[in-house]
Formats: sequence, C-alpha cells, structure tokens
Amino acid sequence: MEFRFDEALPVLQRTPAVLRALLLDLPRVWTEAREGDGSWSPFDVVGHLIHGERTNWMPRIEHLLRYGEQVAYPPFDREAMFAASAGRSLAELLDTFAGLRVDSLSRLNALGLTDADLEKRGCHPEFGLVTLGQQLSTWVVHDLGHVRQIVRVMARQYTDAVGPWRAYLSIVRSG
Amino acid sequence: MEFRFDEALPVLQRTPAVLRALLLDLPRVWTEAREGDGSWSPFDVVGHLIHGERTNWMPRIEHLLRYGEQVAYPPFDREAMFAASAGRSLAELLDTFAGLRVDSLSRLNALGLTDADLEKRGCHPEFGLVTLGQQLSTWVVHDLGHVRQIVRVMARQYTDAVGPWRAYLSIVRSG
Repeated sequence: MEFRFDEALPVLQRTPAVLRALLLDLPRVWTEAREGDGSWSPFDVVGHLIHGERTNWMPRIEHLLRYGEQVAYPPFDREAMFAASAGRSLAELLDTFAGLRVDSLSRLNALGLTDADLEKRGCHPEFGLVTLGQQLSTWVVHDLGHVRQIVRVMARQYTDAVGPWRAYLSIVRSG
Repeated sequence: MEFRFDEALPVLQRTPAVLRALLLDLPRVWTEAREGDGSWSPFDVVGHLIHGERTNWMPRIEHLLRYGEQVAYPPFDREAMFAASAGRSLAELLDTFAGLRVDSLSRLNALGLTDADLEKRGCHPEFGLVTLGQQLSTWVVHDLGHVRQIVRVMARQYTDAVGPWRAYLSIVRSG
C-alpha cells in the first residue's frame, strides 16, 4: 500500500487516544513493567513518543522541505526521555503527547502538501536518500510499533501465569 | 508476575475502549487489511473477540467452577466470526464487544472470587489440567495479543512505503 494523506492522518490522529484508553489510571505494575534490563516500560515509551514529537517528526519533515538532500537530518536521541520524563506522572505525559500531536498535525496541514510532494528527497544521517513519503509512512508505522511494544511488555508479565496456554499465545514468546 | 484481580480487571475493562480509539471510523484500507491469505483483518479480530466473549471466557470460567477436572471444556471455534460478522459494520461490532465485555465482567464480579479460588482446577480439551488463575491470565494476554495483531496488520501495509526505515521497524519484519 502506498502512503496517502487521507489514510495516514486518521492513524496519527488516533494514537494519543489509543494510549490513553490503554494506559490512563492503569495500575503501575503494568505501566512501569519492563521486559528486562535496558528495555522500556509503557511509561518510557510515552516519553519517547513525546521526544519524537518535539525533535523528530515535524522537525525532520520541515528540514527535508527546506534543505532537500543538501543537509542531512540532525541525529535523533532515542533515549532522551529517561531524563525528560523523570518526576512526571503518566497522566501528564499522555496529555503532553496529545497536545504535541495536535500541534504536529496542524503544522503538517499548514504545509499544504500534496501527493506530488511525497517524492521530495531528503538525506538521513545513516542511510542517505529518503523521500518525504517514506518519512511520513515511518511516522505511522513508528506509532503502531510502539503500541505493539506496550501491549507486548504488559502481556509478558503473565508469561508464567498463563501456564500451558503459553504455547498458543505468541505475544509472550516472540518479538 | 502472578495474577491478581485488582491488576487484571483494569486491563480487561479497557480493551473495548482501546479498540474503539484505534479502529472506529478508520478508513477501510486499515480495518479490512490482511497480512496474507487466511490471515485476519482488524474487522475479523473484533468478531473473534465477540465470539470469545460469548462462548469462551466466562462460559469456561463457569464451567471450571461447576465441573472442576471432571468435564473438559467444550472446544472453542476460533473462526466462527467469519459467518457471524458477515454484513455487520465495524461500529456495530465494536459496540457489541463493549456490551458483552461489560456483561462478562459483571458476571465475573458476581461470582465473588478470591485469590484462594485461583488454584481451582479445570480440564482443557487439549492440554488437560489448568487452573482458574491460568484461565484468567490467558484472558488478559489474549486481549493484548489481539491488540498487537491489529497494529501489526496495519503497520505491515506500509512495509514497502517506509523504504530504508524498514531495517529499524521490527513491526514490519517480525511476528
């Protein structure tokens, strides 16, 4: 399937509500659960999404439109949220993410992009040539991937508790 | 982590709202997307959850409490939803699931179960001895697994569209 604005925007718009429905006021054994040392909790993931909203998605799209292939994107710190989220509640983080996502989509809309713009080219610091369509598609898949990560981390807390059903529940076994 | 009612019920309660936040009024290219022949679309998954609510979760819990290890659970048809969902809208299915889940949790609550009941034993038609705690844990993990499946099916529609980012987005590569 190719990227289309009218199909992708409804996914991006929904992510804050999905995270709220899943996580708001949920017991901390779930929201602070991890899969092992160095892995991220649902709380950490929401912080990562906030940081992405601030420094990754719209900033990179605007960078690509401004500089094309001439100037590579600045690098993105995938773990900046560990400092930025410290001392904040999950409810605050969910609200912050929701507000930032509304702002991002409003900035995107203000650019008045059309399908013809999707072929515009930028430069990624690691893998070189990328298109605006690839960047926008990645935003959608990145959201979905982190929803997947959150439910997987939660499910794995019951890896032993499900007993013999483990064999049928791939979420507690595979990536 | 061991099963606890006060931790598990908030997850089971949230699933209908999670599915609504994710899927209601989303373009059909997402809700009817599949990963390949014979795989399930998000629409199919919601139908499967409805069928599980009607014939699997509370019926099995009640069966276990009534018959213990003496009578195995009746088998569960994992694909009954293909007939039952035909001709219905996703909005209808989401409403049906939400109503059934409220009923299920109300029936569960009415049983007045305590932690001591979690060791009670039943008989699964395939793998024999199971406990009530394992059955209840499986209900939670099953919900989370199907949320994971839905976001994975959606993300994979953009497997090609993300271009070189594919290498960083495990959701479009792994199970």
